Amino acid sequence: MKHHLAVLALALGIGAAQAQTPSTATPPTSAPPLQVREIGSLHVGGRVRALDGMPVREMVPSPGAPPIRVDPNGEFMVEGMYAQYVKLAAPRARQPLLLWHGGGLTGVTWETTPDGRPGWQMYFLRQGHDVYVSDAVERGRAGWARFPEIFAGEPVFRTMGEGWGLFRVGPQEGWSRDPARRKAFPDTLFPVAAWDAFARQSVPRWSTTDSQIQAAYNDYVEKVCPCVIVVHSQGGNFAFNAALAAPGKVRAVIAIEPSGTPSAMTDASPLKDVPHLIVWGDHFGDSPFWQRIRGNVERWAGAIRDAGGTADILDLPAEGVRGNSHMLMMDRNSDEVAARIQGWMERRGLMR
Amino acid sequence: MKHHLAVLALALGIGAAQAQTPSTATPPTSAPPLQVREIGSLHVGGRVRALDGMPVREMVPSPGAPPIRVDPNGEFMVEGMYAQYVKLAAPRARQPLLLWHGGGLTGVTWETTPDGRPGWQMYFLRQGHDVYVSDAVERGRAGWARFPEIFAGEPVFRTMGEGWGLFRVGPQEGWSRDPARRKAFPDTLFPVAAWDAFARQSVPRWSTTDSQIQAAYNDYVEKVCPCVIVVHSQGGNFAFNAALAAPGKVRAVIAIEPSGTPSAMTDASPLKDVPHLIVWGDHFGDSPFWQRIRGNVERWAGAIRDAGGTADILDLPAEGVRGNSHMLMMDRNSDEVAARIQGWMERRGLMR
Repeated sequence: MKHHLAVLALALGIGAAQAQTPSTATPPTSAPPLQVREIGSLHVGGRVRALDGMPVREMVPSPGAPPIRVDPNGEFMVEGMYAQYVKLAAPRARQPLLLWHGGGLTGVTWETTPDGRPGWQMYFLRQGHDVYVSDAVERGRAGWARFPEIFAGEPVFRTMGEGWGLFRVGPQEGWSRDPARRKAFPDTLFPVAAWDAFARQSVPRWSTTDSQIQAAYNDYVEKVCPCVIVVHSQGGNFAFNAALAAPGKVRAVIAIEPSGTPSAMTDASPLKDVPHLIVWGDHFGDSPFWQRIRGNVERWAGAIRDAGGTADILDLPAEGVRGNSHMLMMDRNSDEVAARIQGWMERRGLMR
Repeated sequence: MKHHLAVLALALGIGAAQAQTPSTATPPTSAPPLQVREIGSLHVGGRVRALDGMPVREMVPSPGAPPIRVDPNGEFMVEGMYAQYVKLAAPRARQPLLLWHGGGLTGVTWETTPDGRPGWQMYFLRQGHDVYVSDAVERGRAGWARFPEIFAGEPVFRTMGEGWGLFRVGPQEGWSRDPARRKAFPDTLFPVAAWDAFARQSVPRWSTTDSQIQAAYNDYVEKVCPCVIVVHSQGGNFAFNAALAAPGKVRAVIAIEPSGTPSAMTDASPLKDVPHLIVWGDHFGDSPFWQRIRGNVERWAGAIRDAGGTADILDLPAEGVRGNSHMLMMDRNSDEVAARIQGWMERRGLMR
């Protein structure tokens, strides 16, 4: 294990001790202060839906307060989404960077890592990007709607163990409720001791709301772009489609382990001036599920290239970086992965 | 109306034009940059709950991806809460300021106002506080749990119109789906043209989760305090109880229109060294519901004083500031209300 870390550290160009505890490499307290112009948030998209015919009830809004009548009938503002922004006094990036999360998660994905290191939100702020972190329809601060009346179907709740295999931290059969008995891949870079902290970031999701999620993302792009989108997992498909819907407003799409794509019939030619970067972690060999996903995504990347566009692949193991999980932005080398993405943006002329 | 605004403006000590569009008074672009040390987030509290005996299903995680088996049985990490922090390079406040939202809402309450002005998060950052903005259990980025298996009962969804009367923006019968036909109180300071934007901030709530919410808030105080808590509406009761549970860690409680209190039997003496400030807006005369709440809260304030403590009341109309709604931090004079709170903190020795 020690030897392996040393080899890895060599590949990353950093010392082995730093590879084991990368947070010591850039302690936030010693870095110069960020010069921030404004922190704020907005909701975009959504629509009004009216419900009627449901019974009125009483509820106590908080202990000690008198009961109030709750009439569930009326108009509801639903299917909007939420974004929080940090704008710098003097951004070096030509346009803001939008961070889009994956399924069953929220914008928290991009904040502090589960083991307490600065996340990609801070990384890219320090690199000079105005950074927007959003919650898609139905997740986090976007809120969710009554079901089945407004959202079709039922929510899905991720168990604490489901991600162990799905996110390629270890074999699914290596999951155990008991942290001491969990078996991860020996070289995993996910901070496995922080798995339970990561589980706290899970939120319910639906499998029936893709069109509403897409509509709000398109409204979001319309509102805050030109921009560059960094997107993870389930969000990939939404970002690919948002770029197709507004190719003049999306300057680049950086898809971190995207799990979906537009259909194989989709014309990719609107994207010929929208450079794409696809980033893959490790352990695809352990997951036929992810091999199929990757095949679909790389066919989409090929379609963009066939249309005269750019779709680069950053395959970390092929570059000698082993052990990354699906949650690259939380892995112990998260800053190193971000640095490679930053380098791509520099080379693509996205910085001033 | 113009005359009224002029009178109001006089009371606030600002020009009438500024009273109509207060955002012009402090455009964020002209203010000096905030010197920020770190932006990040954390989840605290919660517990593992196991479910079994429910049927397995298939779902497609995103379009184009192969279906996956979803087994709803297993362990779930539930009932934690979320907080995001902005830490300054050189805070002037002696301890961080924690902003706790009210019922059916999230930490978004404290961010940009529905009409797009900087919110209290920015105001207090600019005054030199490290600011934490949280989402209580079941709201926003805290996530929510399967019901009725884990959360008892069903969620409650606020209609777009419910807050019109409940938040004392206008008489409930003044609500209309049609923005042009809505009748607000003539002197309301709520930015009524942004009502629909405010409605986007609503999230579902339960009326059965108070003990879980309180437990997580207590864990939160244990983790990040010493601190000062600014709390709104339904959060009031949680903050009063959190201060009772950890009087040595809570340096002050500033309750903005709190809607609940500990029971009348509760011994307030642990709070004798925890100064409290209660802030009330206008139009209590139009709401017997709020008169009862206020009576309960002021009895609790009296109990704190009887125990030798401090419980000050900031009654804005009594100070000549008319027209504030329940959503003081969104009202057009939000910065002026914040300035009075800041003044109280200065006088209480909470700043360096």
